[in-house]
Amino acid sequence: MKRITLNASVTASNEKDADALRARMREMGTLLVNVMSSAGSGKTTLLSRIIRDLPDLRIAVLEADIASDVDAERIEALGASAVQVHTSGMCHMDAGMTAAAFDTLDGERFDLAFLENVGNLICPAEYDTGAGKKLMILSVPEGDDKPLKYPLMFQESDALVISKIDALPYFDFDLARCIDRVKKLNPAIAVFPVSAKTGEGMDALEAWLRESVQDWKTNQ
Amino acid sequence: MKRITLNASVTASNEKDADALRARMREMGTLLVNVMSSAGSGKTTLLSRIIRDLPDLRIAVLEADIASDVDAERIEALGASAVQVHTSGMCHMDAGMTAAAFDTLDGERFDLAFLENVGNLICPAEYDTGAGKKLMILSVPEGDDKPLKYPLMFQESDALVISKIDALPYFDFDLARCIDRVKKLNPAIAVFPVSAKTGEGMDALEAWLRESVQDWKTNQ
Repeated sequence: MKRITLNASVTASNEKDADALRARMREMGTLLVNVMSSAGSGKTTLLSRIIRDLPDLRIAVLEADIASDVDAERIEALGASAVQVHTSGMCHMDAGMTAAAFDTLDGERFDLAFLENVGNLICPAEYDTGAGKKLMILSVPEGDDKPLKYPLMFQESDALVISKIDALPYFDFDLARCIDRVKKLNPAIAVFPVSAKTGEGMDALEAWLRESVQDWKTNQ
Repeated sequence: MKRITLNASVTASNEKDADALRARMREMGTLLVNVMSSAGSGKTTLLSRIIRDLPDLRIAVLEADIASDVDAERIEALGASAVQVHTSGMCHMDAGMTAAAFDTLDGERFDLAFLENVGNLICPAEYDTGAGKKLMILSVPEGDDKPLKYPLMFQESDALVISKIDALPYFDFDLARCIDRVKKLNPAIAVFPVSAKTGEGMDALEAWLRESVQDWKTNQ
């Protein structure tokens, strides 16, 4: 497992850094997916399931956290390449930080790289990390009112995973109402209700990921 | 319901603003409690329960959110005074913002005022809001590894509420292990496992709140 501690990038333009990283990823044939969610939504559990389910894809995970290595250790235990990034207290990753984290992988080739962004629904939505796709996760216990309270991340994402749907019987979470609220903010967003525990809904999400990787490699 | 949209305070020192607000609250006999947690931990549900259970205390709630008025509406429906604060995209409240929000209550007297801070485990831990007590909430579905990943908030808080314990049977959350991790970071913290849904554990938390209010009023 690689480890790197980063501070906010000091370059003049995050947008330029983001475009440069995207161009580099395009050249390498690696789709970088910026995974955003609140703390405890099940990001690492979801990524672990995807890694197990898609053994033919070469997958790397950049784990951004304020502290601890627990997530990167879980990913590495599955045989995928993991980089643990400590963000020096920052609540998001920027494009320069993402590029620096990716650099620790020594030019190895991947089909798919996940940036597991710092856990919260606010700051990560505001920064372009250079990713080709943005995927956010909302877990059932968090509540179906979150699109009303944190609209920007729902507006900015290409896909929404509604996770922990196995817990729907125990929480007052209206799936249809939630999706309706999300689609009002972002009609084009792809929505995947899943349970990484039971596997329900994973097929559709994984098909979307495969297709996105193919598109990324072919649309040069 | 009062509503106010705030930007970050531009004063030289948040610490000075915080001390000034604390002195003012002391003079008014109002204990201000800074309530911090991730999005979806059940802050508003918990506060609603406390308001119903402590009808003899005069309670106000300052609801800080990026967007929407849903939380303040829920509080106001219970007959408590609520101020909806919109933070202009900011992920935390500072002391100047808190004072400005409190000012909208027109000098009315309260025994207890809750600042429901913006929902995330990172930024709110870094800012002194002028509160007399800091209370954080971690909900069972978020996972018992959160003290490892977001240590600062656990270190800074006077009390930790572990919420949604009615969901313990459905999640891989080890209560003893979680409390052990928290106590290693902050041996003095008071820990209250509760379910605002069933009422389990609420007595101990509410006794702590009553005692804290009494201490605040008498230790001039």
